[in-house]
Amino acid sequence: MAAIVVQSIERADPAVIDGLAKCGVATVHEAQGRTGLMAPHMRPIYAGARIAGSAITISAPPGDNWMVHVAIEQLQAGDILLLAPTSPCTDGYFGDLLATSAIARGCRGLVMDAGVRDVRDLTEMGFPVWSKAVHAQGTVKATLGSVNVPVVCANALVNPGDVVIADDDGVCVVPRADAAAVLEKAQAREANEESKRRRLAAGELGLDIYDMRGKLAQMGLKYV
Amino acid sequence: MAAIVVQSIERADPAVIDGLAKCGVATVHEAQGRTGLMAPHMRPIYAGARIAGSAITISAPPGDNWMVHVAIEQLQAGDILLLAPTSPCTDGYFGDLLATSAIARGCRGLVMDAGVRDVRDLTEMGFPVWSKAVHAQGTVKATLGSVNVPVVCANALVNPGDVVIADDDGVCVVPRADAAAVLEKAQAREANEESKRRRLAAGELGLDIYDMRGKLAQMGLKYV
Amino acid sequence: MAAIVVQSIERADPAVIDGLAKCGVATVHEAQGRTGLMAPHMRPIYAGARIAGSAITISAPPGDNWMVHVAIEQLQAGDILLLAPTSPCTDGYFGDLLATSAIARGCRGLVMDAGVRDVRDLTEMGFPVWSKAVHAQGTVKATLGSVNVPVVCANALVNPGDVVIADDDGVCVVPRADAAAVLEKAQAREANEESKRRRLAAGELGLDIYDMRGKLAQMGLKYV
Amino acid sequence: MAAIVVQSIERADPAVIDGLAKCGVATVHEAQGRTGLMAPHMRPIYAGARIAGSAITISAPPGDNWMVHVAIEQLQAGDILLLAPTSPCTDGYFGDLLATSAIARGCRGLVMDAGVRDVRDLTEMGFPVWSKAVHAQGTVKATLGSVNVPVVCANALVNPGDVVIADDDGVCVVPRADAAAVLEKAQAREANEESKRRRLAAGELGLDIYDMRGKLAQMGLKYV
Amino acid sequence: MAAIVVQSIERADPAVIDGLAKCGVATVHEAQGRTGLMAPHMRPIYAGARIAGSAITISAPPGDNWMVHVAIEQLQAGDILLLAPTSPCTDGYFGDLLATSAIARGCRGLVMDAGVRDVRDLTEMGFPVWSKAVHAQGTVKATLGSVNVPVVCANALVNPGDVVIADDDGVCVVPRADAAAVLEKAQAREANEESKRRRLAAGELGLDIYDMRGKLAQMGLKYV
Amino acid sequence: MAAIVVQSIERADPAVIDGLAKCGVATVHEAQGRTGLMAPHMRPIYAGARIAGSAITISAPPGDNWMVHVAIEQLQAGDILLLAPTSPCTDGYFGDLLATSAIARGCRGLVMDAGVRDVRDLTEMGFPVWSKAVHAQGTVKATLGSVNVPVVCANALVNPGDVVIADDDGVCVVPRADAAAVLEKAQAREANEESKRRRLAAGELGLDIYDMRGKLAQMGLKYV
Repeated sequence: MAAIVVQSIERADPAVIDGLAKCGVATVHEAQGRTGLMAPHMRPIYAGARIAGSAITISAPPGDNWMVHVAIEQLQAGDILLLAPTSPCTDGYFGDLLATSAIARGCRGLVMDAGVRDVRDLTEMGFPVWSKAVHAQGTVKATLGSVNVPVVCANALVNPGDVVIADDDGVCVVPRADAAAVLEKAQAREANEESKRRRLAAGELGLDIYDMRGKLAQMGLKYV
Repeated sequence: MAAIVVQSIERADPAVIDGLAKCGVATVHEAQGRTGLMAPHMRPIYAGARIAGSAITISAPPGDNWMVHVAIEQLQAGDILLLAPTSPCTDGYFGDLLATSAIARGCRGLVMDAGVRDVRDLTEMGFPVWSKAVHAQGTVKATLGSVNVPVVCANALVNPGDVVIADDDGVCVVPRADAAAVLEKAQAREANEESKRRRLAAGELGLDIYDMRGKLAQMGLKYV
Repeated sequence: MAAIVVQSIERADPAVIDGLAKCGVATVHEAQGRTGLMAPHMRPIYAGARIAGSAITISAPPGDNWMVHVAIEQLQAGDILLLAPTSPCTDGYFGDLLATSAIARGCRGLVMDAGVRDVRDLTEMGFPVWSKAVHAQGTVKATLGSVNVPVVCANALVNPGDVVIADDDGVCVVPRADAAAVLEKAQAREANEESKRRRLAAGELGLDIYDMRGKLAQMGLKYV
Repeated sequence: MAAIVVQSIERADPAVIDGLAKCGVATVHEAQGRTGLMAPHMRPIYAGARIAGSAITISAPPGDNWMVHVAIEQLQAGDILLLAPTSPCTDGYFGDLLATSAIARGCRGLVMDAGVRDVRDLTEMGFPVWSKAVHAQGTVKATLGSVNVPVVCANALVNPGDVVIADDDGVCVVPRADAAAVLEKAQAREANEESKRRRLAAGELGLDIYDMRGKLAQMGLKYV
Repeated sequence: MAAIVVQSIERADPAVIDGLAKCGVATVHEAQGRTGLMAPHMRPIYAGARIAGSAITISAPPGDNWMVHVAIEQLQAGDILLLAPTSPCTDGYFGDLLATSAIARGCRGLVMDAGVRDVRDLTEMGFPVWSKAVHAQGTVKATLGSVNVPVVCANALVNPGDVVIADDDGVCVVPRADAAAVLEKAQAREANEESKRRRLAAGELGLDIYDMRGKLAQMGLKYV
Repeated sequence: MAAIVVQSIERADPAVIDGLAKCGVATVHEAQGRTGLMAPHMRPIYAGARIAGSAITISAPPGDNWMVHVAIEQLQAGDILLLAPTSPCTDGYFGDLLATSAIARGCRGLVMDAGVRDVRDLTEMGFPVWSKAVHAQGTVKATLGSVNVPVVCANALVNPGDVVIADDDGVCVVPRADAAAVLEKAQAREANEESKRRRLAAGELGLDIYDMRGKLAQMGLKYV
């Protein structure tokens, strides 16, 4: 595998990115037809964070975080670091020093199908991370990887510049070119949900709001 | 499997249910002879909740949450929704809209051997959920299941109307007919534990309080 | 396996132990050459605790916590209980009564490759636990084990009296005889990291601070 | 939990049991409406075995195989031993000596949500086992359990005397009272499948045999 | 997600595909720079099979195998069915009837990040399957998916018509356009390995054949 | 961690080692008091192998098999390679070329808490491997480790020269100095088991042979 760093990538419109963050992972995932969701093992290191940003992708060997240093130079304000190891790994690729550097360049967070460490510091710094594991295990700097190439991370395809949305429900990837259209659909879902929420809160049933009773009967559901 | 909804179930005495909640999962589990405990993969979405209620059971196909809508109509104040998929599944069967509806009917929480989403909202709403996973993955409404039939959930048998107790230690099921007797034993354990707690806090050893030294020696324990 | 209790063990210097706690798991692990780290499944029951202490080791049968009572008598102020079951087990070996007793003897926390229960109480008591699982499942007192013998816990070898450091990143074990030397290296790392942290926060890149550019080019990294 | 041995259980008609064995797990599972299937972690120790028999159930503590000895006395020719530990366990509860004893009483095999050992010997003896793990870890005989009580095994409810069918696809449980009716449906499925098999082998498509094209088009499937 | 079936896909040269099969997964994976390998949970249902073919891809809902029927119509001789569920699932999507149909159209095997059933029959038929699980659990035909669209399967990106190589070591995907070049490199590796094999078998050491001693000494390896 | 190769290790008596192989893992594990057993995830690549040998230990970085080449030079006839990665890893550290080299030096097999590849070739060569995974993923040769140092492998402590016994039930480690004594106990167990086996085969019950009835009654077992 050639070891390359792609220095110039396109990003989505910042307003669109921020709009997607506000909608959250579950809504965005629905809005784009239930695609782009990472596997459920990707969990946040602390509750409550909700971010979106442009992916700076890293393909790294197992247990080797050299390429993270290379990737940080490619960060622009509003970006998210996204690391996929080339084979399954739980080592701690990232800690508070790298977070300090990433924050200095405007990075909004990290998504990594591997392990993270210094999570108490990262929590205090308010730097959110979604990862497969928390593990103090250190890494080496001995083998090259690539930055800003397409990667598969936690079973989702990510191209550099794609929009990554992450919150307590997991991580979702929206292709850059689709971001505006997905945002529109996501906001429409939210508006629609708001009226449903009021009716449900008032005691109406989903069975009636969504007009399900006939279909259920027709399919054979028996009340006894 | 016939798709049915049992509309009339018996419930335990509300005072007994509330008493069991106060005792908590570990004590109730001991009190009923160490039976009825769900598998350890059932975890709460936030720390600190402790509830008990009557089970409204749902048997649902993988990735299909249609029956949740059906089940919500069967809820009475003080009930707990309990969903067992018919095959292993981590999809997000339940989110904030369904929670809004469940809360409107007095539901105390959800226990589900599957995935949940919108967990930030659910946490803010104070609606506790114990689940196998958190996953934004949506579900469909295409295949029937049943409501208020016996189910096996996370390796525990649950009949509709059984008392479900859930807290940070997991989830335990008490058969409806045994609830009063189990509460009595659980409260006896608590009273007994309170005196033990004081003696242990004062520095007495379990070895002496429980009179273990003779038995240990007899079985061959050697101090060196 | 003979069932023995070793009553007299050596401990590291308390000041060294407290110094290691302050450095934290990730730094100590690096400082001793990346050895002694437990597997990543060892997780704290609540966030934010950071402790170090001398290991009182327990080798216990699966589902049998009798030896915990025996071990508590061996505790001195500043010690940590460390339990390794003789086969994989997630049962709840330890709860609030045992914690009350351990605290009365000055115990700083518990590390256990098994399950724990009463975690809400333990959290309120401020008694930190690192474990493989949280499970209400009770244990019996029927079979002997040993106290203060060498054990392998979560893939790490622990001798009685070794220094155990635990925080949000996991658990690391430092052999008693190495503790002072490891502390020295850990503190040197911290001092070194502090200057790095300032430079990184100011926007300097790791690529420059660690002088990586030449090596990367030499190994073939291409910027495109 | 009271420790009891139920000595007299009802069994299904031997001809029905043998008929179910011949149909196999997948067909029987379909025939009874997709219920009664154990979790996919239940795997055979060697390929090719296909058995059915009446369940002699064992509820045993983790790491304690005392009740297996008790259960063997309850075996009749054609029975299957079925063990569910009271908490998750991978210890080797069963080996070649117990198999020798079980075979002497006409036992057809073992289903166990735990570990097994001596698997080379068991394979040579032709004694099939479905288990969660293979592990040499021994067990003790210190704590009571029960024989021929209802148990939940690998997420399936099993009553003593239920028919257990096991093959390379896993393990399925048919309630004793339903066995004849399920066999009838299973045999009907087999007859129906045979004609389908011939047509499919001749190159006809399932799309046509099952008349799916219209429904697919109506639901919106697009050929491009 | 639009539900589509792409009916016309390009395939690699059959001679190239067969050449890749002969090289096997480990060699091909190396030859294309260690990319395209599926996760290690993808295991064969029987040992010894080694195949390559053009991917007919299926994106299917969890627990719903309707699209398999649709995909079979798209098969040409030499193809491999490749199914990725849209969320994690272990249900048995495929059994002996579908295999009969697939074989009738010249299909070489199945790769599926889900469950398979009827594995005894499939083994007797010599139809190889690589899957995440073996499970008798049936599926429904209620929700659409797509055929011959890009999918991510067991953490590997697969485009329709890509070459899939599968053997006892797992499953690897080679982009269609790269197939000839990868084959050339794989064959070169094999030729090179053959001479190494002879020298190693004669007792020469890798340390000498690969001239490693100087580098090891330079990096600090100490013989004691 | 210093990178060292210990060139001179002591080994147990070859006759003792071969005797232990004949007893097998389950018996040896019992004979030494149920210690030294590796975790149940260690599985053989093919059924039926049963070996014992002196451990040549390898501590290797994740995804880096350089030290395997170094270790092979240290092999003597009758040895077993035993690799423990310094953090969890499933990469394929070992394949048919390394096996060719190991066999040329008289190596009996490989035990590795990591991944292996070329398993079809290894099976044909009759070179047995016990591992955590089968994975085609290649490794690099960039970072040093050590050979013939103490390691913890799959939760078992192994010193160089310890006797490793491996068969279908897993892997057990016997400290070199204890090997003769453990063999004696293992052979005594076997002799004792042989008479039990005959009595059990003749239909006698373990309940009677081991005289369990009185103890069971005394502990409260009720026959109903």
